[in-house]
Amino acid sequence: MPGTAKSDPNPGANSAKLFLRRPQGRRGIMQYSFNKTLEMSFDDAVNKVTDELKKEGFGVLTDIDVQTTLKKKLDVDFRKYRILGACNPSFAYKALQAEPRIGTMLPCNVIVQETEEGKIEVSAIDPIASMQAIENPGLQDIADQVQAKLKKVVEGL
Amino acid sequence: MPGTAKSDPNPGANSAKLFLRRPQGRRGIMQYSFNKTLEMSFDDAVNKVTDELKKEGFGVLTDIDVQTTLKKKLDVDFRKYRILGACNPSFAYKALQAEPRIGTMLPCNVIVQETEEGKIEVSAIDPIASMQAIENPGLQDIADQVQAKLKKVVEGL
Repeated sequence: MPGTAKSDPNPGANSAKLFLRRPQGRRGIMQYSFNKTLEMSFDDAVNKVTDELKKEGFGVLTDIDVQTTLKKKLDVDFRKYRILGACNPSFAYKALQAEPRIGTMLPCNVIVQETEEGKIEVSAIDPIASMQAIENPGLQDIADQVQAKLKKVVEGL
Repeated sequence: MPGTAKSDPNPGANSAKLFLRRPQGRRGIMQYSFNKTLEMSFDDAVNKVTDELKKEGFGVLTDIDVQTTLKKKLDVDFRKYRILGACNPSFAYKALQAEPRIGTMLPCNVIVQETEEGKIEVSAIDPIASMQAIENPGLQDIADQVQAKLKKVVEGL
């Protein structure tokens, strides 16, 4: 791939523990996603994200083209923006067994957006941040592992 | 429709305020979804949810058949379970303008699952619970309005 990447390591979320305390990022503001800016075409970025997800066992179950959807529904112009719904079936199955309504927060989204000409930002949800409202110790280990995998996906871009 | 419904009013989430405090349900456990049990066929429930969402301006952008997906990917048997990704385009647009990475938490999921023979549980995500990690006062009013709409959808089933 021709692109280069700049890392945003999001140290606060990395050290977060589910249900126990609010993870704190720089300046005390919580981070809820792992982010990286890529310098490549938008379509190449979507393909690279899909490939990296696959390496960690995630398939893309849903794919929302926000730009096209907003144009069609509201006739407004929006930047290139895709929401990929990533699912690792083994972890999803474990999570569903531990917490029957966890589907309200699945799949794990990875967004790809063009923040400026030639700059593509990728953001993967931090499941420990998004699921902090769920008080279920049985999810802790699963969420830790999925968080580590999504972090690795972003670092690998 | 032939079905009857039993309400689970989820009073804790109803009184929640985004970013300000953790909403508390009964027994101090946070609720993160609005739930109702329906007595009708699974397919009728999915259709009814879709109709009620439409009344509040939500289209269903994604639809994951968890039972079929888990059978295909893991060869395991799972109950009937669908994840509908609901989006109200006007509110999504406002949210995206206020918080560029909010797509990591969109669309708003409504799940339909068969909890036992003839009993179908519907759960709509409480966006104030799932988005509590985002510290952005500009989202408060939007989240309040979307929460009210999703609550109305469930109550209308």
